[in-house]
Amino acid sequence: MTFISAIGSRVGEEIELKGWAYNFRSSGKIFFLQLRDGSGRVQVVYAQDALAPAHWDALRSLRIESSVIVRGTVKKDDRSPTGFELDGTSFALIQRAPEDYPIGKKEHGPDFLLDERHLWLRSERQWAIQRVRNTIINATFAYFNENGFIKFDTPILTPTSCEGTTELFEMPYFDEEQKAYLAQSGQLYLEAGIMALGRCFDFGPVFRAEKSKTRRHLAEFWMMDAEAAFVEHEGNMHIQEELILRIVKEVLEKNAYELRVLERDVEPLKKVQAPFVRLTHQEAVRQLRALGSDIGERSDLGADDETMLTEQYERPIFIEKYPAEVKAFYMKRDPSEPDRALNNDLLAPEGFGEIIGGSQREDHLETLLARIDEHRLSREPFEWYLDLRRYGSVPHSGFGYGLERIVGWICGLHHVRETIPFPRMMNRLKP
Amino acid sequence: MTFISAIGSRVGEEIELKGWAYNFRSSGKIFFLQLRDGSGRVQVVYAQDALAPAHWDALRSLRIESSVIVRGTVKKDDRSPTGFELDGTSFALIQRAPEDYPIGKKEHGPDFLLDERHLWLRSERQWAIQRVRNTIINATFAYFNENGFIKFDTPILTPTSCEGTTELFEMPYFDEEQKAYLAQSGQLYLEAGIMALGRCFDFGPVFRAEKSKTRRHLAEFWMMDAEAAFVEHEGNMHIQEELILRIVKEVLEKNAYELRVLERDVEPLKKVQAPFVRLTHQEAVRQLRALGSDIGERSDLGADDETMLTEQYERPIFIEKYPAEVKAFYMKRDPSEPDRALNNDLLAPEGFGEIIGGSQREDHLETLLARIDEHRLSREPFEWYLDLRRYGSVPHSGFGYGLERIVGWICGLHHVRETIPFPRMMNRLKP
Repeated sequence: MTFISAIGSRVGEEIELKGWAYNFRSSGKIFFLQLRDGSGRVQVVYAQDALAPAHWDALRSLRIESSVIVRGTVKKDDRSPTGFELDGTSFALIQRAPEDYPIGKKEHGPDFLLDERHLWLRSERQWAIQRVRNTIINATFAYFNENGFIKFDTPILTPTSCEGTTELFEMPYFDEEQKAYLAQSGQLYLEAGIMALGRCFDFGPVFRAEKSKTRRHLAEFWMMDAEAAFVEHEGNMHIQEELILRIVKEVLEKNAYELRVLERDVEPLKKVQAPFVRLTHQEAVRQLRALGSDIGERSDLGADDETMLTEQYERPIFIEKYPAEVKAFYMKRDPSEPDRALNNDLLAPEGFGEIIGGSQREDHLETLLARIDEHRLSREPFEWYLDLRRYGSVPHSGFGYGLERIVGWICGLHHVRETIPFPRMMNRLKP
Repeated sequence: MTFISAIGSRVGEEIELKGWAYNFRSSGKIFFLQLRDGSGRVQVVYAQDALAPAHWDALRSLRIESSVIVRGTVKKDDRSPTGFELDGTSFALIQRAPEDYPIGKKEHGPDFLLDERHLWLRSERQWAIQRVRNTIINATFAYFNENGFIKFDTPILTPTSCEGTTELFEMPYFDEEQKAYLAQSGQLYLEAGIMALGRCFDFGPVFRAEKSKTRRHLAEFWMMDAEAAFVEHEGNMHIQEELILRIVKEVLEKNAYELRVLERDVEPLKKVQAPFVRLTHQEAVRQLRALGSDIGERSDLGADDETMLTEQYERPIFIEKYPAEVKAFYMKRDPSEPDRALNNDLLAPEGFGEIIGGSQREDHLETLLARIDEHRLSREPFEWYLDLRRYGSVPHSGFGYGLERIVGWICGLHHVRETIPFPRMMNRLKP
């Protein structure tokens, strides 16, 4: 079986393709079929004279999204967005779609399209987004493989809210008395993993029962967490930089067509080069205030602050050393400035904002106990986590990215809902 | 920083390693330290004469699982299981573990070890299992990448029980009225994916609220589902065979040391070659009865039947064309025997039994509607799925494997609980 993605090596040959009628038009005795097969799209040009009458009739009865088998001779065509075209020699329907394919050329609202998500995925933009998402996933696996990170699948069903948040999905676990909570991050478990395996990453769905409807939030999304023993704050940022460079490079190499479909200006992506911009939180606040933000000296950055800041630079921005009180209990403090964490966020350019959060972790038992108390968390659920500081504690660091935010940035999308096959939001659990 | 896995290229050099004291013993003025760093294990041999007195004292005060920094000169050592040894030149403690490391050399019961899972992972067998698991995951990604399959992340939170099973975890979704169910498989969503992308796979956690405590069941486990448009029953089995061959080959190549740690006889793994054994369900039943099983003519195989059958062959066994009534509604029937499904299971040798289930899918709308009715399922939740047969239906097939069963087979483990970092079972939600 031949895929459209591979026809470049078959110029001059007659080949068979199977796929779907993405679009078509006719002009007298010529019929232009846009065929898609999942791997790509190609135009098949049929001349009535060159075709058996039954095939021509079948073409004339064609409907959008019908499944078809075509034969034709491959030729190079520089006017074609995909570089090739087929001179059609035969045509057959597999299954004829009803006339009223629900998604047309007219504008549809987002609710309609999300109701029809199982079909909307076929439109070329949605196809392109999923292909870019796939490249990002694979570039991540490749980078971690080459750098000694082992995939370590952390649990989704957890006995407690580890970070004291209220945005957890809760459910009965085998009986009504026992509750399980859906994980929001695998980080704490990954820390156990690296004490066994040195370097680990996980990559799976996480859940947030957040009652907000912003363009950047989903109730279920894919999170990649990485953690490494004997890596400190600086080394942690170096790994993040290398990973993001690798992802952008692979998308530019492998998804040029998809980025054109998405009308994504690739120039800003080409400018994603090392070294990334580095600002301390203090420097970032100073710049933001000069730009007109009313951000407090010791506040976390808001989404508007992030946007404002990224518009000042062409490269991604590390912001490091946040005030410890706005960050999680497990972050190690900066020894030279103990009220600040040895952490960083990474902001994507062009207004996209935060895509990564990371930090060195507190590795000293007594200090970590004090942090748990300061954050008014109960010690008991953390006993196993504290064991990691009791038995052979080592300096270690990690970070996580939200896959949908990376996809959104690289594809240039305003809303994360298009970045995942079947988005789940407060008012959206179907299909 | 140097990893133990890479010292083979540093013979004759003095290097620094960071890791944990896995074990040690002394003999007069010689101290033997087993160092592990996550990437591997190596013996460091210290002679008192060659060491600063403070370093020697630190060594003598060492406790199991303390974190340490060592320096030494790499030498080849053919008696060593890992091939190399270090002549120690310096030693420092990072953090000294308390005397009573909970996991000792004595036998521990499974409940104790599962309570201490965050530490148990450090033992060499558990380390080896996770490394093999990682290779299996990567071999799967590599195979699918090279064969045009796109990763397509299907949702965990779903609005309904798609297959009418009762073993679902249920939870409130944002309000008490609306219920969400944790997915047991991404298959139906993958079928939507391939109509857009041609070939897809997913790989993520799935959930089963099964009140059973067998050695083959977990409440949360990792499932890989693959689906391909224009692939029929025969082609589907071909893909499964290629994938399993690839997985076994990569583990044999990359995890020879880990398999030795696990005392896994690799000869049976080396015999996993194409073509796999192929039996129809009818043939399998005939053989089983001859072997003394009381299996019914039209029954599914039980675990004991699977074990018995796999002991007759050295290669994995495809069993195809089960009686339709014991299989799911979405499976296409065999046109030449309409009471049988175009499906297959794949049984791993040496008694391990089912690791894959797959089938061609019913692609005809009216037939699928009839099946839904026969299985007494409600049509409404399947409307979106039925759309896939309304708009450009094509022949397609797919299959899924349970990662923990594959890991269990390849590592030669009796119980799946050791195959996943943090197992979840009916009575086990911690740590």
